[in-house]
Amino acid sequence: MTEMPATMRQLRSLVTPGGELHLSIAAVDTPRPAEREVLVRVEAAPINPSDLGLLLAMADVSQAVEGGSPDEPSVTAPIAEPVMRSLAARVGDAMPVGNEGAGVVVAAGESPEAEALLGRTVGFLGGATFGEYCLASSRMCLPLPEGANAVDGASAFVNPLTALGMVETMRREGHTGLVHTAAASNLGQMLNRICLADGVPLVNIVRRPEQAALLREHGAVHVCDSSEPSFERDLVAALRDTRATLAFDAVGGGRLAGQILNAMEAAIVAADAPYSRYGSDVHKQVYVYGALDPRPIELRRRFGFAWGVGGWLLMPFLARTSREDLERLRGRVADELTTTFASHYTHEITLRDTLDVPTLQRCARQATGQKFLLRPQR
Amino acid sequence: MTEMPATMRQLRSLVTPGGELHLSIAAVDTPRPAEREVLVRVEAAPINPSDLGLLLAMADVSQAVEGGSPDEPSVTAPIAEPVMRSLAARVGDAMPVGNEGAGVVVAAGESPEAEALLGRTVGFLGGATFGEYCLASSRMCLPLPEGANAVDGASAFVNPLTALGMVETMRREGHTGLVHTAAASNLGQMLNRICLADGVPLVNIVRRPEQAALLREHGAVHVCDSSEPSFERDLVAALRDTRATLAFDAVGGGRLAGQILNAMEAAIVAADAPYSRYGSDVHKQVYVYGALDPRPIELRRRFGFAWGVGGWLLMPFLARTSREDLERLRGRVADELTTTFASHYTHEITLRDTLDVPTLQRCARQATGQKFLLRPQR
Repeated sequence: MTEMPATMRQLRSLVTPGGELHLSIAAVDTPRPAEREVLVRVEAAPINPSDLGLLLAMADVSQAVEGGSPDEPSVTAPIAEPVMRSLAARVGDAMPVGNEGAGVVVAAGESPEAEALLGRTVGFLGGATFGEYCLASSRMCLPLPEGANAVDGASAFVNPLTALGMVETMRREGHTGLVHTAAASNLGQMLNRICLADGVPLVNIVRRPEQAALLREHGAVHVCDSSEPSFERDLVAALRDTRATLAFDAVGGGRLAGQILNAMEAAIVAADAPYSRYGSDVHKQVYVYGALDPRPIELRRRFGFAWGVGGWLLMPFLARTSREDLERLRGRVADELTTTFASHYTHEITLRDTLDVPTLQRCARQATGQKFLLRPQR
Repeated sequence: MTEMPATMRQLRSLVTPGGELHLSIAAVDTPRPAEREVLVRVEAAPINPSDLGLLLAMADVSQAVEGGSPDEPSVTAPIAEPVMRSLAARVGDAMPVGNEGAGVVVAAGESPEAEALLGRTVGFLGGATFGEYCLASSRMCLPLPEGANAVDGASAFVNPLTALGMVETMRREGHTGLVHTAAASNLGQMLNRICLADGVPLVNIVRRPEQAALLREHGAVHVCDSSEPSFERDLVAALRDTRATLAFDAVGGGRLAGQILNAMEAAIVAADAPYSRYGSDVHKQVYVYGALDPRPIELRRRFGFAWGVGGWLLMPFLARTSREDLERLRGRVADELTTTFASHYTHEITLRDTLDVPTLQRCARQATGQKFLLRPQR
């Protein structure tokens, strides 16, 4: 077993009873893997939109201030009263953060599957990857292929398996095309590459002209910009071409989910079809997998009765996936790690940098084209 | 074959290009059954909420006026401009109306299953039951048991199979309790009797104290009145008791569906549970089967990611039901026609009465406790 320190540094996110977010770097005992677990020395961890909810606790980061001492720095930011009510269960609990990352396996439990990973560089799903070391289930490790390093493998789980999971879900539920919102995101670009490679018709919905241009440069066939006055017409036309009846929506607030359902119905019902007060019998589905817009979801029903809107998350999808299917998906990620599933980072930051207010504020903006990579060993 | 007239009277609903609803009684050829069909002399047909959408075309019935001549009476009422856009496909088409009814089979196609019904009194699903005669598929006829008459059997399809379909859906999708909105309706009272008989925990949501009292008189255990200031608390308490995770919602507009999902989540998550930003992993489902409230559905998400809202209708449910299961459900309706599945009518009206403006306006109100039965032979 590699020599490793008794204690390690780890980013912690605390909500105080007084209504403040408090971020700090804790010195904690380096954990020991259980039978089927491994310990990874984290070399790189992406800061994903899915990490920000836990990290920032919906605090008002524009009012963040640095505190603590040079040896024990911290950041605090106020949390609005209505938000505090939804956070009751985490008040007082300094939580570790970080869904995924990559690094070297430096210790392993006694099971063969854990021991087989010792010394390998792996991408992995953790839950505390924003620290120097992190435990992982051996099942949630992806040994990186020859020639790939930890930066290549840092985002090997969440976005690749989410994008592949969308296409898998489409096939399992009998749809033949997809709609994706916030489509210029890192995840959206990945999904676009998968759909182009697999011949799956995809309608990309974006919010700005430059995002539409970016996707078109990358070969996207159908791009609809919701900032255009012709958006609803464009969407119906794209849905007529693609016959897509399943959407994955990262926005999850406002009218967009309902607009998609109404456009799907308009694309399905022929102009000269006989009147039916129940609408078409083609099932139209929107899965909401994010919450970029915190407003209520507003559904204006002109889409008949064959419809559904629901939540979708990666982990429950993986739990419904057979071992063989999961192996197939992971194999594809490994094979195409630096092509289809390549992620690009605009900033590399250290653990200490996460407590720098301007850096934290840039992280929090979730702007398209900006992506942060944490390097905990630096 | 029984002697029958060459022509018959039938209620027709027409939307004019100028934006008016026009109701009239047409004299049409008496239709002849195809191989697997029968012709029913309609003795009784209920005016269900599900008939009113087609019959009234969302016209402003408060402005209805009588017209035509004593021999050919009619009623007209204005339709608002935004509504007209959704009715484009039916403009100029004088449509027959009426989903179900009961009467005597007076002619049958050549198939054995059709011929076997000749002379029987049946409840049936039609599509044009608001007339003197109506065709029906032999599969959609329920021969009434000994001693039951057409009035007993007039509502043997839509409400009984909808209520049974809700309980079947609950079992098929792995839930163990139900929530029902507009629960004091004829359908709601039926569902309450089924759930009491079958030991299925049921949370009844109503909008007025007298509706709550009515259901409690009928043995309902959990009744929540949305007009009470304590509604949301009451709902969480009832959901804690019942563990119901599936709701059927006839309202389909405003905040109710979201309130139900949030109350389900609050009932599932223990007060001392560890914080999860993704919510519980228990799937919570609302099926919308009506549109009593025409406003948009507004979902305020505090219910995590394991949720779904979708449309539900009787006919697609029946299409997903095996022949054996359908026989079982129909058998139960026949056995319990005058008990569990009894319907009570407050008004019996003739075809001519449907063109009487005050009568039509009372029909349109869909008030709980008021139910109209059409007697086309009178």
